[in-house]
Amino acid sequence: MRKEKIPAATIIRLSVYQRYLKRLLANGVKVVSSSELAYEASVNPAQLRKDLSYFGRFGVRGVGYDVASLLNTISGILGLLDEWRVVLVGAGPIGKALLRHPQFSKQGYVFEAVFDVDPNHVGKDLVDGHVVKDISELPKVIKEKDIQLAVLAVPSEKAQEVADILVECGIKGILNFCTTRIKVPRGVSVQYVDFTILLDTLTYKISQHSIEGKEDSVNSTKPKWAREHSWPVVQSNSHRQGVSLTS
Amino acid sequence: MRKEKIPAATIIRLSVYQRYLKRLLANGVKVVSSSELAYEASVNPAQLRKDLSYFGRFGVRGVGYDVASLLNTISGILGLLDEWRVVLVGAGPIGKALLRHPQFSKQGYVFEAVFDVDPNHVGKDLVDGHVVKDISELPKVIKEKDIQLAVLAVPSEKAQEVADILVECGIKGILNFCTTRIKVPRGVSVQYVDFTILLDTLTYKISQHSIEGKEDSVNSTKPKWAREHSWPVVQSNSHRQGVSLTS
Repeated sequence: MRKEKIPAATIIRLSVYQRYLKRLLANGVKVVSSSELAYEASVNPAQLRKDLSYFGRFGVRGVGYDVASLLNTISGILGLLDEWRVVLVGAGPIGKALLRHPQFSKQGYVFEAVFDVDPNHVGKDLVDGHVVKDISELPKVIKEKDIQLAVLAVPSEKAQEVADILVECGIKGILNFCTTRIKVPRGVSVQYVDFTILLDTLTYKISQHSIEGKEDSVNSTKPKWAREHSWPVVQSNSHRQGVSLTS
Repeated sequence: MRKEKIPAATIIRLSVYQRYLKRLLANGVKVVSSSELAYEASVNPAQLRKDLSYFGRFGVRGVGYDVASLLNTISGILGLLDEWRVVLVGAGPIGKALLRHPQFSKQGYVFEAVFDVDPNHVGKDLVDGHVVKDISELPKVIKEKDIQLAVLAVPSEKAQEVADILVECGIKGILNFCTTRIKVPRGVSVQYVDFTILLDTLTYKISQHSIEGKEDSVNSTKPKWAREHSWPVVQSNSHRQGVSLTS
């Protein structure tokens, strides 16, 4: 594995490759070409090869990638060979929706316990036997179950207070649905989820269309793959501004 | 405005700048330095200046940016000077959570109507008077209200079918909470939201920490701003792999 800076976009694309490889494996496909795998992730084959090159040499020229082997390698890189236990803090509508979302368990993320700071939520059976625990029980659960991941979905004004507790308990990664920035020490990572920022990207494109009001794109000479979307962060089938994380 | 390709990451950072400028304005701050604004978006000042340079010349050297003026300009670029009416398709837990999420209205996104393909949901008062309409009413509402944005939160197997209807009705931007890829024609943009991909980025970092098992980072020589998070897509306070969209 080369010791160099790996772009965030590469890691995100690894997740996309991994999901597609899982589907292929489930469908009994044994070998996939770089062009097909690249297409699914909406990058060009050169980008795919560059992404993989950070981690070694894969595939056979003219043949393609062995699906099971590449899936195993990428899953290993992403740390997804085993299940991850996750604590959820926040028993509001977002927390409830996440608990019910099938994608988490499908990807090996298991909600171990649900906590809330609001006494009104504590003790309630939120979803399928997930009884909301008081935040004071958090340290014990995290320690006993050796949990490193937390999903934070409390009201924004409680975000920092809860983040401090999570960090104190040894949590290393926080998926933060609160719109406030939280401060965490080195060694702890935070991913923010703000749906409205993604909407802004859409309104930007729609607005640029309205302003330009004509069909010719500044990127009309780009090859098709470059005009495809860069799932999951940005998809553009409009291409007027060529918004793409892959370029 | 320069006619060149504008990176997706720039558009996302514009949203971050915009939110911070709004907060500053609300707090009565009149002028902000590029270093402060850059810090809030976790980029270096040169990146901020580069982002803005796509759209013209802003700020006064040694003084900074006029908060109200820059906010107005960025909001204009993003198409956020007016409210956007949005249709929501999908009255399940995710849809319900989104309807209740205060961030949408705060950012000028107004849910005009809620639809579902499941007859069991139709007619129910989902949240605060939002009665779920049958999907057959979608074209009429979109046309009458001149709506261009849709949020898609139906079961994955229904995603393409509903997307086709949305496109047919003239929707130009879709925020897609379904994990399946959807096909849309040119001129229509899709943004995907897959929470588990963000979790993968966290597991990647945690796993890399475990493998390396020591404190020295490959990016330890990077300046502080480069080691800050690149909100909202990736925050890393761990920096072992230097995952950053800003580089």
